[in-house]
Amino acid sequence: MAAVPTLLVLDAEPLPRLGRLTGRVRVLHADGSTLGALLPEADVLLVWDTTSDAVRAAWPGAGPRPRWVHTAGADVERVLSPELAASDTVLTNARGVFEEPVAEYVAALVLAMAKDLPGTWAAQTRGEWRPRESRPVAGTRAVVVGSGPVGRAVTRTLKALGATTALVGRVPRTGIHGPDDLDRLLARADWVIAAAPLTELTRGMFDTRRFGVMQPSARFLNVGRGGLVVEEALVRALRSRWIAGAALDVFGTEPLPPDSPLWQVPGLLVSPHMSGAAVGRHDELGAQFVELFERWAAGRPLRNVVDKARGYVPGR
Amino acid sequence: MAAVPTLLVLDAEPLPRLGRLTGRVRVLHADGSTLGALLPEADVLLVWDTTSDAVRAAWPGAGPRPRWVHTAGADVERVLSPELAASDTVLTNARGVFEEPVAEYVAALVLAMAKDLPGTWAAQTRGEWRPRESRPVAGTRAVVVGSGPVGRAVTRTLKALGATTALVGRVPRTGIHGPDDLDRLLARADWVIAAAPLTELTRGMFDTRRFGVMQPSARFLNVGRGGLVVEEALVRALRSRWIAGAALDVFGTEPLPPDSPLWQVPGLLVSPHMSGAAVGRHDELGAQFVELFERWAAGRPLRNVVDKARGYVPGR
Repeated sequence: MAAVPTLLVLDAEPLPRLGRLTGRVRVLHADGSTLGALLPEADVLLVWDTTSDAVRAAWPGAGPRPRWVHTAGADVERVLSPELAASDTVLTNARGVFEEPVAEYVAALVLAMAKDLPGTWAAQTRGEWRPRESRPVAGTRAVVVGSGPVGRAVTRTLKALGATTALVGRVPRTGIHGPDDLDRLLARADWVIAAAPLTELTRGMFDTRRFGVMQPSARFLNVGRGGLVVEEALVRALRSRWIAGAALDVFGTEPLPPDSPLWQVPGLLVSPHMSGAAVGRHDELGAQFVELFERWAAGRPLRNVVDKARGYVPGR
Repeated sequence: MAAVPTLLVLDAEPLPRLGRLTGRVRVLHADGSTLGALLPEADVLLVWDTTSDAVRAAWPGAGPRPRWVHTAGADVERVLSPELAASDTVLTNARGVFEEPVAEYVAALVLAMAKDLPGTWAAQTRGEWRPRESRPVAGTRAVVVGSGPVGRAVTRTLKALGATTALVGRVPRTGIHGPDDLDRLLARADWVIAAAPLTELTRGMFDTRRFGVMQPSARFLNVGRGGLVVEEALVRALRSRWIAGAALDVFGTEPLPPDSPLWQVPGLLVSPHMSGAAVGRHDELGAQFVELFERWAAGRPLRNVVDKARGYVPGR
């Protein structure tokens, strides 16, 4: 390691909290066009702009590569090129920052759907007094797919609202169902919440067959990754009333193009990938990186290390 | 008491569960036009249509009056004429049925405002991808005004979402603030939730002065009674950005007239008095009345007895 390591930051906005590293690190900034040229100089790459595909594009080039890459997001597939996966470079992510905001966002959507707030506010624009019955959340059944920290936080929040929850993960263990239980659970669920990482096992898992298993009164939410859902299958399920409604915060293509048919599917609520975007998170993300950097600089083991074969941080 | 007492039902829709009383009661039905003529025959009046003003209009007439009136709602001011208040007739209400639905409705509105779901769905209608930061609910401060069962249920639910709550009642006691604390609490609140009954002490309590005490980031919700709020003062507070937003489920005049300016105030969410209207409540209301009737017929003390001077069921 050089006396003062070089930190290369891929960023689209000013970074909070990095001032604490002043004098202990040489900081370079890159955008998508300069990343490839600067990568060989970097000991550490901080991916602050998590919407960029620049790392996947730049990584396969020539020259040395950073020994550590940290992405200030929960998802790694925009960063994790096959070459990075095969390398010795350690990849960490921002696990711990997004869980509670996402759980609140799911609770907001579930309650809004139960109370039909979209219908109420549409009536408001027409000046129309249209009282009607709403559904309870307490006592309903939720299935949360994805047993990582986000899925577990979602489960805790829905439980706090009185829902009965089932958590489904890759491997069955205490309190967590395995994939073999999924269809049976989907068939009885009032709410199905996708909160899994995108892997070869989860890609496209919500397809025509799975929407067909759900109850006509079921509602489906995706706050995981767009690729978990076969979007055309969901649209068909909504149009055919196989399920009662859906809310998508993530999409196969983001930003969702203005001419996407998804904007206008009856019963489908579209939000712009903002479930984890709580006020104050930039500050938390900055502080989290500084803490990890201090561990790295001291030669202590990093936290939040991504299993590059699986595409997420395994464990607890 | 006649061998078979007469139950007069003021109703607009079929009643569930009353079949259990078959043979033990003579049932008469009335609407607003026939109530006055039938009142003298009734031992018991069941006010099933809680949106009707017929009881207040009919009660002052001549002849005997029912010994017991039950209203299948939480509010009594549409029923409680001065003559009924001064009489020996016992008045009961539907305390116990609406608390949890109202608490969920408040949670739905609070979370929807924190996440700006109205802004997201307005953007959806324009096909506009507009990600932005949302606010957390966990760690925010809520003041709930009204320490009855509804206010307490709201407090429990907001606490379950991680908010810090303060409950304000008519009389300070353990865990409940008195009116003297109100302004101090309002000045620090992120959420102000009105869930009080309408009495001479609470009428118009949310006025220009009180909205002026609140923070510019505060949001105000009313799920109590429309008369708690000086509506013009709220509109002015929103237009002047004294507070950040509001949601009203109840109004001084209901239904809210189509030409009311309240439909179109920026930052004001209007819903048609439906916070307690959960699926299944008719069944619960019917079962609750049957249970009370059985107590009454057996000469046991009734529950949910309204203090007619105060206008609500006092206690715990």
